[in-house]
Amino acid sequence: MKKKVYEFINTNSYFVKFIYTLIILNVISLILASYKEINYEYHPILEGFEVFSVIIFSIEYILRLWSATHEYETGTDLGKRMRFVFSFPGMIDLLAVLPFYLPLLIPFDLRVLRILRLFRLLRIFKLGRVSKSLQTVFSVLRESRAELSITLFVAFILMVLSSTLMFYVEHEVQPDKFENIGMAMWWAVATLTTVGYGDVYPVTGAGKLLSSVIALVGIGFVALPTGIISSAFMTKVQEEKSKKAAEDAATLITTCPHCGADISDIKH
Amino acid sequence: MKKKVYEFINTNSYFVKFIYTLIILNVISLILASYKEINYEYHPILEGFEVFSVIIFSIEYILRLWSATHEYETGTDLGKRMRFVFSFPGMIDLLAVLPFYLPLLIPFDLRVLRILRLFRLLRIFKLGRVSKSLQTVFSVLRESRAELSITLFVAFILMVLSSTLMFYVEHEVQPDKFENIGMAMWWAVATLTTVGYGDVYPVTGAGKLLSSVIALVGIGFVALPTGIISSAFMTKVQEEKSKKAAEDAATLITTCPHCGADISDIKH
Amino acid sequence: MKKKVYEFINTNSYFVKFIYTLIILNVISLILASYKEINYEYHPILEGFEVFSVIIFSIEYILRLWSATHEYETGTDLGKRMRFVFSFPGMIDLLAVLPFYLPLLIPFDLRVLRILRLFRLLRIFKLGRVSKSLQTVFSVLRESRAELSITLFVAFILMVLSSTLMFYVEHEVQPDKFENIGMAMWWAVATLTTVGYGDVYPVTGAGKLLSSVIALVGIGFVALPTGIISSAFMTKVQEEKSKKAAEDAATLITTCPHCGADISDIKH
Amino acid sequence: MKKKVYEFINTNSYFVKFIYTLIILNVISLILASYKEINYEYHPILEGFEVFSVIIFSIEYILRLWSATHEYETGTDLGKRMRFVFSFPGMIDLLAVLPFYLPLLIPFDLRVLRILRLFRLLRIFKLGRVSKSLQTVFSVLRESRAELSITLFVAFILMVLSSTLMFYVEHEVQPDKFENIGMAMWWAVATLTTVGYGDVYPVTGAGKLLSSVIALVGIGFVALPTGIISSAFMTKVQEEKSKKAAEDAATLITTCPHCGADISDIKH
Repeated sequence: MKKKVYEFINTNSYFVKFIYTLIILNVISLILASYKEINYEYHPILEGFEVFSVIIFSIEYILRLWSATHEYETGTDLGKRMRFVFSFPGMIDLLAVLPFYLPLLIPFDLRVLRILRLFRLLRIFKLGRVSKSLQTVFSVLRESRAELSITLFVAFILMVLSSTLMFYVEHEVQPDKFENIGMAMWWAVATLTTVGYGDVYPVTGAGKLLSSVIALVGIGFVALPTGIISSAFMTKVQEEKSKKAAEDAATLITTCPHCGADISDIKH
Repeated sequence: MKKKVYEFINTNSYFVKFIYTLIILNVISLILASYKEINYEYHPILEGFEVFSVIIFSIEYILRLWSATHEYETGTDLGKRMRFVFSFPGMIDLLAVLPFYLPLLIPFDLRVLRILRLFRLLRIFKLGRVSKSLQTVFSVLRESRAELSITLFVAFILMVLSSTLMFYVEHEVQPDKFENIGMAMWWAVATLTTVGYGDVYPVTGAGKLLSSVIALVGIGFVALPTGIISSAFMTKVQEEKSKKAAEDAATLITTCPHCGADISDIKH
Repeated sequence: MKKKVYEFINTNSYFVKFIYTLIILNVISLILASYKEINYEYHPILEGFEVFSVIIFSIEYILRLWSATHEYETGTDLGKRMRFVFSFPGMIDLLAVLPFYLPLLIPFDLRVLRILRLFRLLRIFKLGRVSKSLQTVFSVLRESRAELSITLFVAFILMVLSSTLMFYVEHEVQPDKFENIGMAMWWAVATLTTVGYGDVYPVTGAGKLLSSVIALVGIGFVALPTGIISSAFMTKVQEEKSKKAAEDAATLITTCPHCGADISDIKH
Repeated sequence: MKKKVYEFINTNSYFVKFIYTLIILNVISLILASYKEINYEYHPILEGFEVFSVIIFSIEYILRLWSATHEYETGTDLGKRMRFVFSFPGMIDLLAVLPFYLPLLIPFDLRVLRILRLFRLLRIFKLGRVSKSLQTVFSVLRESRAELSITLFVAFILMVLSSTLMFYVEHEVQPDKFENIGMAMWWAVATLTTVGYGDVYPVTGAGKLLSSVIALVGIGFVALPTGIISSAFMTKVQEEKSKKAAEDAATLITTCPHCGADISDIKH
């Protein structure tokens, strides 16, 4: 019985599709509820859908918890269930339903509740569980982690240095824009990432020169991670190729099909 | 006769160039007509050119439809013509002339008509039909489709997550800018793509911190597809090289060095 | 005598450095002259330097023209000089001094003169004449020319399509911003290149959706040429390596240094 | 004794961590001090921490100077100490404490002092001393230095050319925005780097056309260094692989297959 439930939850394509559809509809309903006019007019429908989906997700969570004994091979039943609760998908599933029950238990402030509801969005990541491409992308990012983090680190130092310098250069002229180093860092981020909102920018000659240098360095700050990731992708593609080539090489002809003589020392 | 028409339409360089010139002039005339002063002064000329080109394109379409029996090898005449009508170039050709005739048939609203005229621009894609480079670029994009779409998917989730979070952070302070999650998504797109129009940006400390994180992630969002495409291009170049090398290698050992028998039919 | 002049102009390091310094000082003086206060106060100095440098560049041009007979190996003296006049460096040299003499010959309008002075800036390209790196970069760009121009072409079509669509979407709401398709194209360029000045942006829902799509496509528009150039650079580096490897392979050991037996069929 | 101090400073993990923590806290305190309210309320604490950290860094510097005789192998004691003082880490260490003592010695102007305090931030680079990834990134940048600087050089020429042209095009219409070529260069930087603050942009047709061209070239200006860096990264990864492969290959044939003699000292 438990095994059948476990298999139904994880492999029945209708059930899986139903859950995925419900997740997406939930995100859409959350976005729609932020529109004042829509929330005003369709409040009962949105609220009803909210209750309906929380019930479904709660039942799903309980079934997953109950059938988690089939998820893992070793350990006691309680141990397996604990492992599920603290696993990444288990945590997401719990955080997706918890914000609905919490205010029923403890007299929570409403504003906190609203922020907690955000975790529901994490359910979308369930959709990516199976994807092979996602794993390729993530494995490339993981392999180039060291170089990427050093780039981020250098960028961070540069940001602190340039924003402090900019603060001293522009503070006198624009005390409201470059009020403190924090504001100058906001400028540094917008410039280094080449976003350039245009709410904060230098007006003095020295400030513009510094900003130009940082904008040019920003190009490098885009180029470096791109180069790192490109290289990691290429390496991955080549690894898969050479793995396949090695397998193919094992089946190469080493004897002449006509006389049976060993010709493995002939270069192919 | 039909075969001659078919060959004339598709291979006669003067006719082909004439059609391409007409397409480009049509696009220019459409752009010029959007300038109030130009439209006011040269309305008869633009209108006349419109009628003239629609007539030419209609005749061309009819001839293509009539001679479509030479386009495909198998099937009945009607089947071949249906295949042409529903083929991609056939659809573009039809949509390019249809908006002119539709209001004559059905009492259409004028505004809808104006939007339909846009399809005429798709004729330009005819110009790229022959290009080998376009095929290279498209084949690279097709091969890295899986990784590119997963990047887009992750970016989309990130966009929904960050814009919802941003809505709760900034809505209180800027209710007119971050009116709903839709507006926050507009900010998220502008930041993630590093466009940064500057019409919507956070003003609170938490909002600026979140925006900085998203702008930095945006760098990665530029770096990832670039890395994917770079890798796919390199793979394509190397494949073409190794294909050539394999062809060259096939002419190396064709006889067994021990018995002299022909082994050129063995795959190396 | 003529040969000595030719060698002096092209190889004497002091003369070459003097000319390069003069070019750079000329650019700086042109920039400084655009500052109203500086131009007001130091007008005689800037004007004097202008006359001085034009005299030097004129003498240099005459000497180059005179000694051009040593530049090329075949042809008559006049033919060689004509070849120099119409060569790229010869044209730049002429255009650099011509704007000064033209108003003396023909009663030209002053405004046209000012624009002609811009060609003087092209002299800077002389500085790059010898650089090997510049040739590497240019050869990479030349080799990936076909793919880069098709990308530009697709981007151009996309720009025309999206700006026309945007014009119909936003014209009603913002008739001053999206006045005509030309203005919409200005928005399309700013969005596709992710510059995002922020002077023109959509305000309607449909416009924002279209803008988001174009901004996302803009990422691809950055990624594609980068991928093409990365791939071309990699191919260039590998070509140089395999050329070197082929040269090295020719010197590989083919006989055992101890017994003198042929071991060239052993795989290294 | 001196050797023990040298080893304690450079290898004792508690001391090293303490110094790193102090550096980071110093940067944070510098940022916090720029907030008017925080500086007003916690001035004595920030000032006290300032004095405390300068004392620690001064003692560290004196100890490093004293034990520098163990840093280098050759030279006299004074020579070794001079070498340390003028080494890069030695200079950073000195510049980090000097701004505090200078006003005590010479009656310096306060504003100059504030700018000198910025060097303290350079201490953070100490953190990167050991990192292997930082060296990888730096070595990639160093190897592609020639191509990167030529790109920067071409970009600079383009910037001067386009900003001069833009000045003549837009000066008449927007004399306050495009006041001089310097201001036009500010626009050129913002456009070429695709930052696009939006404080300066063309309004005339010709200006917009030029800006569009520069923005499109800006894409290339992002693509080129990215391509160069990607290629350099790939080359580095492949070099490390082939180095490993060469080491593996060196253990393959070590004896002549004909006479059995040891030929492992022959380079393959």
